[in-house]
Amino acid sequence: MYEVEVKVPAGRDRIRSRLETLETTPLGTVVQVDTYYDAPHRTFAETDEALRIRSERRPEVGAETRLTYKGPLVDDESKTREEIETTIADDDRIDAILRNLGFEPAATVRKERERFTLEDGEYTVTVDDVDGVGEYVEVETEVEAKAALESARNGVYEILERLELDPDDQIRTSYLGLLLEAEGDSSR
Amino acid sequence: MYEVEVKVPAGRDRIRSRLETLETTPLGTVVQVDTYYDAPHRTFAETDEALRIRSERRPEVGAETRLTYKGPLVDDESKTREEIETTIADDDRIDAILRNLGFEPAATVRKERERFTLEDGEYTVTVDDVDGVGEYVEVETEVEAKAALESARNGVYEILERLELDPDDQIRTSYLGLLLEAEGDSSR
Repeated sequence: MYEVEVKVPAGRDRIRSRLETLETTPLGTVVQVDTYYDAPHRTFAETDEALRIRSERRPEVGAETRLTYKGPLVDDESKTREEIETTIADDDRIDAILRNLGFEPAATVRKERERFTLEDGEYTVTVDDVDGVGEYVEVETEVEAKAALESARNGVYEILERLELDPDDQIRTSYLGLLLEAEGDSSR
Repeated sequence: MYEVEVKVPAGRDRIRSRLETLETTPLGTVVQVDTYYDAPHRTFAETDEALRIRSERRPEVGAETRLTYKGPLVDDESKTREEIETTIADDDRIDAILRNLGFEPAATVRKERERFTLEDGEYTVTVDDVDGVGEYVEVETEVEAKAALESARNGVYEILERLELDPDDQIRTSYLGLLLEAEGDSSR
């Protein structure tokens, strides 16, 4: 499974009012706390991989923890990478297992996300407020086969345009990368 | 949490009839398929650690998958090691995450286990039939503190004696180790 995801900086209020003019299904708001790990045997920044524990809290539903591996970018034009994810029963224990294997927590990204689907669930629009980073919109879709990537990317660009956003403004740096850059700036 | 576990070779029929004379609570029979992984950055056989995915099937309940890290032995007299375990929603995906991180499946141990508790759940007696290895009994208890290990071990020995088994017959080699030894023998 491949995820095509394009992210651009955008104020939440402006996007919310644009979304009101489109046919969307609101999926609600969640708080996500993501902990990224360093590997003992590879430098993920060089291999362009990531290992993450995500704890997600939804009002009325409670917390859920997932372990996610993200592979290197397979597509230069958008943020497309292989992603493997499974739900984990106990966040403290998966953290303890990773630490015992030599993986160390490197950084934590906390954000509030508001999600909407468009076109019968084909696209997801995510309006993010990321602690220490800022406000962004992500438009995302998924495809099974690598051959379908180009048309998926064009579909994502079209959604961006309907939100009056410019695909050329896209940022390929992850929130983790943006946070590390921001922390670097503030410590100067 | 520390697990005190003593294992001795013992025929299932003989143990079943001994257990009938004691006050036990039968916990039922499960089939466990354990896949052990090699690490890319450590030789677990040397560090005396293990990383395992266990898929357990119970009649009427279905399958459950757990990821387990076992630390090195902390006690020479019994098989006592730190163990961290969490339930995982998807066995194929946790396997794919581990493989992408460079962990490789090394061996698979399949066994049928029948479990009983004694003394209000303080001790667990497990009657195992391990594919390619043979029939064994494990007596096990858990303690929170390292200081409680000696009395826990004595309690385990006492249960073994009530089963007419000799604590001196105990085998410290894991089923994985026994399987690898058996496979080594048969390939000579």
